[in-house]
Amino acid sequence: MQNFEFQLSTRIVFGRDTIKQTGAEIARSCRKVLLVCGKGSVRRSGVFDAVVASLRDAGVAWVEFGGVRSNPLLSQVHEAVQLAKREGVDGILGVGGGSAIDSAKAIAAGAASDRDVWAFIDGTATVEKALPVFAVITLAATGTELNGLAVVTNDITKQKWPLRSPLIQPRVSILDPTATFSVPRDYTAYGGVDAFSHVVEAYLVWPEPSTPLQDRMSEALAMTIVEAAETCVRSPHDYEARASLMWAAALGWCGLIPAGAGRARLPNHMMEHSLSALHDVPHGAGLSAIIPGWARYMVESGQSGKLPRLARNVFGVNEKDDRKAALAGIAAFEAWCQRLGSPTRIGQFGSIPKSALPAIVDNAAVTAIAWGMGDAYPRDVIAAVLDGCW
Amino acid sequence: MQNFEFQLSTRIVFGRDTIKQTGAEIARSCRKVLLVCGKGSVRRSGVFDAVVASLRDAGVAWVEFGGVRSNPLLSQVHEAVQLAKREGVDGILGVGGGSAIDSAKAIAAGAASDRDVWAFIDGTATVEKALPVFAVITLAATGTELNGLAVVTNDITKQKWPLRSPLIQPRVSILDPTATFSVPRDYTAYGGVDAFSHVVEAYLVWPEPSTPLQDRMSEALAMTIVEAAETCVRSPHDYEARASLMWAAALGWCGLIPAGAGRARLPNHMMEHSLSALHDVPHGAGLSAIIPGWARYMVESGQSGKLPRLARNVFGVNEKDDRKAALAGIAAFEAWCQRLGSPTRIGQFGSIPKSALPAIVDNAAVTAIAWGMGDAYPRDVIAAVLDGCW
Repeated sequence: MQNFEFQLSTRIVFGRDTIKQTGAEIARSCRKVLLVCGKGSVRRSGVFDAVVASLRDAGVAWVEFGGVRSNPLLSQVHEAVQLAKREGVDGILGVGGGSAIDSAKAIAAGAASDRDVWAFIDGTATVEKALPVFAVITLAATGTELNGLAVVTNDITKQKWPLRSPLIQPRVSILDPTATFSVPRDYTAYGGVDAFSHVVEAYLVWPEPSTPLQDRMSEALAMTIVEAAETCVRSPHDYEARASLMWAAALGWCGLIPAGAGRARLPNHMMEHSLSALHDVPHGAGLSAIIPGWARYMVESGQSGKLPRLARNVFGVNEKDDRKAALAGIAAFEAWCQRLGSPTRIGQFGSIPKSALPAIVDNAAVTAIAWGMGDAYPRDVIAAVLDGCW
Repeated sequence: MQNFEFQLSTRIVFGRDTIKQTGAEIARSCRKVLLVCGKGSVRRSGVFDAVVASLRDAGVAWVEFGGVRSNPLLSQVHEAVQLAKREGVDGILGVGGGSAIDSAKAIAAGAASDRDVWAFIDGTATVEKALPVFAVITLAATGTELNGLAVVTNDITKQKWPLRSPLIQPRVSILDPTATFSVPRDYTAYGGVDAFSHVVEAYLVWPEPSTPLQDRMSEALAMTIVEAAETCVRSPHDYEARASLMWAAALGWCGLIPAGAGRARLPNHMMEHSLSALHDVPHGAGLSAIIPGWARYMVESGQSGKLPRLARNVFGVNEKDDRKAALAGIAAFEAWCQRLGSPTRIGQFGSIPKSALPAIVDNAAVTAIAWGMGDAYPRDVIAAVLDGCW
C-alpha cells in the first residue's frame, strides 16, 4: 500500500425527503446563495421547488443562475462568477447532476478570486479560497457530491479538464434517492456507466500492486452498480435500487476506495472528455462506447492486468484461462450496457462520422500529456484505441 | 436503505514514517498538548521518541500523562483532566492503542467542561465542547482513530460504557503501519478479532434488510482482516499485511460501512465489556471467546440471519444447506482464532472460574438495557449465551 492523506470533509445527508433539510444545513454558515441549476429537469421534477421552499423556511436568500448545460462551459462559469460577485452571495448551491454541481464548484473558486477560473484548471494558479459549496444531487453518476473536482469545458480551446481543490469540495451534500426517480432511462444508464467507470478504471490502472482491501471494495461497488443500474432502468421508482446506485456512485469517486493504491489516471475518461468536448455526447454514453475497445486493446497488447479478475469477481465469468476470461468480461460489460441502452461503440452515435477521429485524437493527446499519461498514451496509441472503438 | 447523516471529519495521514508529521499537523491548531499514552510499549518501540521529536521540531509543547492501562479507568481520566486544566493545554494527543486514544478523547471532553466525564457517558449530560483530539495509533483494532467513541470503565460501578460525541473524534489521526511491527503476537491477534467483530457483528445484526452495498463492503473488510491478521501474526514485519489490517480496522468502525443499514447494537461487544470490566481480559480475546457460543445460540434459536452468507462469502464455505453452512462458518471462525492464538471459549481464560458467570450476567444485563438491547437480551438469554461460551 502507498502512503496517503485523506479527509472526507463533506457532511452527507442521505435519504428520502432530505431535500427539506437543504436550507437549514446552509443557514449554519451562509445567508445568501447563488443557486446554480440546469435547463429544466429540476423544475419539472419538483426538486427546484422543494429546495427553494427549504431555503425560504430557513431564511436563506438566493439568486438563481439557471440554464447550465451538460458538459458545462467556461463561458457560463465566467458569467455566473460575475453574478455571484454582483449579488454579494456568501455561498454557492448546486442543484442537479454533475454539470450543475461542477459549475457551482468552479463558480465558488472564481467568486472568491480575481483570477480567471481557467488559471486554476490549467495549473497557472492555485485555489486559495472559495465560497462554501453545497450540493443537492439529482443524478447518480459523477460522484461530484463528495469530492473536490469540477470538470469544465473551455469553449475556445475545447479542452474538458478538471479543477481540483479541497476548497471546492461541498461542505454539505444532500443525497435524496427520490430526486432521481424522474431521471430518464438514458441518463440513468449513462450515470450508471460513469459510476462503474470511476471505480473500475481506477481499479484496473492504479499503480500499486498490493491492494487487497481496495480491490475488494472496488468489486463490491462495481457489483452493486451493475445490479442497481439495471433495476433503476427497468423500475425507475425502485427506491432501494436508486439508493444503492446513488450511494455507490458517491462513494466510488470520493477518493476513499483507491486511497493507498496510488494515483489512478483514467485513460477512458481522458479519451471520452475529447469525445464529449467536441461532439457534446453525454459523458457516460461516451465512456460505454470507448471502454470495450480500450479493454480489447489492453488484452491484445498484453496488458490485461486485472481484467480477468474483474470478469470473474464482478461479472461472474467462470473461465480459468486469463485471456478468455478477460474477453468474456468485456462481452459481459457490453451486454450490461446493451441492457441499459448505452452504446458500446462510437459508431453508434449517428452524430460522429469516422472522419472526426483525427480531431478527437489530437484533442485527447493534449489531455493525455496534461494528465500525466503522455508516455502510456501517445497519439498513435490513442488513435489505435479509438479506431477500435468505432 | 435507511436515511443517514455521515461525516468522516478526521484527517487521515496514513503510511510509512508518517509519525514524523505529528507535530506539524498539531501545530496548525494547538500550541501545547497533553500527551496521553500507556505503560511502556510506545516507549520501547520508539514511537514515543518519534512523536516527541516531531512535537519539538514543530514547536508544540507537551505534558505527559503516561501509564494509561488497558480497559482504561474513569479514575485515570479524572486525574488527567485535572492535569490538563492545571497545565492549560489546548489539545489532547493520544499515542498508543485503543486505551490511550479513548482516554485522550474522554479527557478532551472533561478538560473543556466542569461536569464529571461520567455524566457524558451515562447520558445525564451532553458534550458541548471538547479540546481537539489527535491520535497516533499503534494497534490495528478498535477503530477509535476514526470515530467519536471512547470506552471507559467506571472503577466503582464496573460499567464499561462508551462516550459518544462528534466533538471527540480525532481532528487528525496518524496511521503508520510500521508502528505496529512491535505489537506482540497475542495483541496483534486480539486486535484482528476486535476489528473483525466490529464489521461482522454489525453486518449480522443491523436492522435494515436491503443493504447490498453495505453487505459487500463488510465482506470485503472481513476477508481482508481474516487474511491480514494471520499474516501479521506469522510475519510481524510484513508491511503490506500490517497496512491492510490497520486500514481495514480503521474503516471498519468509522460508521461508513454500515451507513444506511440502521443502528447496529453489538451483542458480543455488550457481553464482552462485562467480561473485561470484571476480569480485565483483553477485549479482543474476550470477543473471540464469546462469538462462537453466541453464533451457535443464534443458529439453535432459529436466528441464523446472515450467518450462512458470512460463512460462504468470507470463509469460503461450500455448503448449500443454510444451517450446515452457518455451523461450518462458526467452525471456520474458531479455526482462524486458533491459528491466531486467540481463545474460543471463556473457559480458556484460566483466571475466570465458572462461578463468576452470574456476576458477569448481572453486569451485562444492565449494559444491555443501557444500550437499548434489553428486549432481545434479557438476563436469561445472556445467561444462556454465556453458559454456552464456557
